[in-house]
Amino acid sequence: MRLYNHPTAEEFVLERIFHALSDPVRLEIVRSLSCVTEATCGELDGGRPKSSMSHHFRILREAGLVHTRVAGTVHQNTLRRAELDARFPGLLNAILAQTGR
Amino acid sequence: MRLYNHPTAEEFVLERIFHALSDPVRLEIVRSLSCVTEATCGELDGGRPKSSMSHHFRILREAGLVHTRVAGTVHQNTLRRAELDARFPGLLNAILAQTGR
Repeated sequence: MRLYNHPTAEEFVLERIFHALSDPVRLEIVRSLSCVTEATCGELDGGRPKSSMSHHFRILREAGLVHTRVAGTVHQNTLRRAELDARFPGLLNAILAQTGR
Repeated sequence: MRLYNHPTAEEFVLERIFHALSDPVRLEIVRSLSCVTEATCGELDGGRPKSSMSHHFRILREAGLVHTRVAGTVHQNTLRRAELDARFPGLLNAILAQTGR
């Protein structure tokens, strides 16, 4: 069983959050996770190749946006909303409020 | 005299805004410009090499964050705040409200 490292809220870096959100696939994952309690990688991949999705999830985890929990054979992902809100007040809500491109 | 191209507000792309803000130098330029009406590149470069700053200003312009006006021999930069607020309500304020790293 593979375990993932996640930064603590104190280790979050604003620029790293923005880098994670600078890609449409990753922004879409964050949007999707904001609507559910948790979701597997498979539920979030939109049919994209697994190798490319692993890269995107790694960037999201390293930025502190997403927590990945290994549950048997599936990986359950959650948005670290409470910690992000505490560290960067109002930021995630302002981002998720944007609908247009 | 060199003129710069700037995207219209309709051409702004959220992911491009985030890319522009994913670098500490560019984030600092945006913060600095939020406090003044306009500023020259020299006032904003923090002693960094001109070639590297040209790159940063280009990324900021292409994202729609910064407008550069050529005034004689100097380049005056402004934050496109009104257009950004109209296109992405609340986003810039939420970003500028973050102080910690």
